[in-house]
Amino acid sequence: MNPSIHPDLHAISFLLGTWVGTGSGIYPTIDDFSYDETATYTHVGKPFIAYGQKTRRSDSGEPLHSEAGYFRPSGVSAVELLIAQPSGISELHVGEVSGSTIDLTATSVVTTPTAKEVVSVRRLLMVEGDSMRYQLFMGAVGQPHQLHLSATLKKVKPV
Amino acid sequence: MNPSIHPDLHAISFLLGTWVGTGSGIYPTIDDFSYDETATYTHVGKPFIAYGQKTRRSDSGEPLHSEAGYFRPSGVSAVELLIAQPSGISELHVGEVSGSTIDLTATSVVTTPTAKEVVSVRRLLMVEGDSMRYQLFMGAVGQPHQLHLSATLKKVKPV
Repeated sequence: MNPSIHPDLHAISFLLGTWVGTGSGIYPTIDDFSYDETATYTHVGKPFIAYGQKTRRSDSGEPLHSEAGYFRPSGVSAVELLIAQPSGISELHVGEVSGSTIDLTATSVVTTPTAKEVVSVRRLLMVEGDSMRYQLFMGAVGQPHQLHLSATLKKVKPV
Repeated sequence: MNPSIHPDLHAISFLLGTWVGTGSGIYPTIDDFSYDETATYTHVGKPFIAYGQKTRRSDSGEPLHSEAGYFRPSGVSAVELLIAQPSGISELHVGEVSGSTIDLTATSVVTTPTAKEVVSVRRLLMVEGDSMRYQLFMGAVGQPHQLHLSATLKKVKPV
């Protein structure tokens, strides 16, 4: 039995499903890299979307990044996002929903004692039907805020 | 293919698996409640354990709580924990591993603008073979730090 989508999720229900695709990463302190990604956006009938993501290095298949968190609508076109990362970084975002674009800026980036320093993150999600593009901008390890990740995913499974 | 467990995980590898059981919640501001829980602790061969948990109300089966995060060993008997919750709360913990007990205290509790106030959290995990007990202590919504959750889970699936 699939629960009904909570009415508060309607503005961001375009996220729901399983998404697969590829992305690329750049940053002044590291070599460029390409990755394969699987992302899931699921719901249980409550007013939040659970988000999980895993990437693998495109060349070797080696597990690269993963993260998990929750989208919380907080108004007609506002959304909150919480993300935990195994790299020791937690992000809290507040964002705006405009059509099927979500523009999120971290209001708080908290790191564990052994994590790298991250001071700013912006996450931009743009969905058109079954296609999602996202960009992640980051200021970290002494570098200015700049583009770090770009990816294009296809919805391979609906809600 | 299951990857080998990363050597850094050996001190906390007793967590790995799927755990199912029941718990109870108390707090001065709410009615007591009982819940059924499923928790998963998984790895991909890297030096962290991905953690996810879902609970349902024991009487009605209604989805209750969920959370997701990562355990990061940070020394011989030290571990970091990051948790995101759909209630708008992110916890960062630093903890001590003693045998198969992990005692974690939040060094940071960050909440989104629309979340309830939580100021302190301690999580105590005690594993004996295929049995896990945990307690969660919390100071929130103006109440002093105190026991909030107790549960006993059984490992139903190994790594």
